[in-house]
Amino acid sequence: MNDTTEIIQELIKFRNARDWDQFHNPKDLALAINVEAGELLELFLWKNHDEADKEKVKEELADIFAFAFLLADKYGLDVKQIIFDKMRTNAEKYPVEKAKGTAAKYTEL
Amino acid sequence: MNDTTEIIQELIKFRNARDWDQFHNPKDLALAINVEAGELLELFLWKNHDEADKEKVKEELADIFAFAFLLADKYGLDVKQIIFDKMRTNAEKYPVEKAKGTAAKYTEL
Amino acid sequence: MNDTTEIIQELIKFRNARDWDQFHNPKDLALAINVEAGELLELFLWKNHDEADKEKVKEELADIFAFAFLLADKYGLDVKQIIFDKMRTNAEKYPVEKAKGTAAKYTEL
Amino acid sequence: MNDTTEIIQELIKFRNARDWDQFHNPKDLALAINVEAGELLELFLWKNHDEADKEKVKEELADIFAFAFLLADKYGLDVKQIIFDKMRTNAEKYPVEKAKGTAAKYTEL
Repeated sequence: MNDTTEIIQELIKFRNARDWDQFHNPKDLALAINVEAGELLELFLWKNHDEADKEKVKEELADIFAFAFLLADKYGLDVKQIIFDKMRTNAEKYPVEKAKGTAAKYTEL
Repeated sequence: MNDTTEIIQELIKFRNARDWDQFHNPKDLALAINVEAGELLELFLWKNHDEADKEKVKEELADIFAFAFLLADKYGLDVKQIIFDKMRTNAEKYPVEKAKGTAAKYTEL
Repeated sequence: MNDTTEIIQELIKFRNARDWDQFHNPKDLALAINVEAGELLELFLWKNHDEADKEKVKEELADIFAFAFLLADKYGLDVKQIIFDKMRTNAEKYPVEKAKGTAAKYTEL
Repeated sequence: MNDTTEIIQELIKFRNARDWDQFHNPKDLALAINVEAGELLELFLWKNHDEADKEKVKEELADIFAFAFLLADKYGLDVKQIIFDKMRTNAEKYPVEKAKGTAAKYTEL
């Protein structure tokens, strides 16, 4: 079994044991991702780029991944597939010869 | 090769071809996750739970995953491992007999 | 003295007494707004529209306002002015006859 | 009339002309604040502290303020009052003698 499938299976087992599927509608899962993203961001607040506490980053990142995997599952999306699809789109928006070495948004390239 | 490894390899190939590693410090990657999470959230704004445009959800979710994988890689974290570790922690915070069927935070169980 | 001026003066007094201006660059203030916005959002997570704890909403909203006023001050912006300017822009994007009773984004009107 | 009152009155006039009160429940207003906060944050992404476009900061900040004022109004909150109340709470969490010159969270002072 590939590991994204395994991750989703375990998350669903955890959720179903607690009967939480009733709360996990797509909108609230999107909220949850934002809440966890905010907690991740707090670890960097008023700090230099590399000063966040790695152990806490690990936990917040795990929470973001968990809700993102659960939302992907709600829509029946294959995580590897959607990332690869998006890279193809981005490859057109950000062709190497234009985008190399610049952080500009594609609308300003 | 398992697919989380494959995803990270492809993301890094894409990034390095554009020489973007110089911008991808941990703090800005955390920012990027928040920016994309906000774009995901917008798809549900003023809407009922299931009314978001699936095609757009797919794209925003892909962006969140991409930056989350890149941040995990920055810290040398194994994505499956950190999710499974967090589930173990959460299993203690949210024991089945207490948490079943309630959306309350563990501090209020 | 009008009350937005009074708010900013008090916030700056509070900040300067703690010598925090050194941390309050525009980027980190924008981060702080996001962190506090995430904490506000958490109060609504898995809940119906009106089920958040009002006392907590009050506190998170105060934090968002505080950092928003401090960021406005950094850029020398007059809060009433920028809101009224934005309403003028939005009045063009969302003319009453098109926007009435619909939550659609202006790009879809 | 003080200017926070004036701001809220104008925002409500704008909203009511478009019959948008039906969409402006507290939860979606909290979402809207997060969406706008994410757009503000994007202006600083991959950039140094002061490199954001001031004109765009002005607009995103106006949006955050607008939804924050509307949410305060939903709960009948006086904006100046809640900010001053929060400063009093924070003055206890962050006494000058402990907090001066440090960005540490109160839990770590």
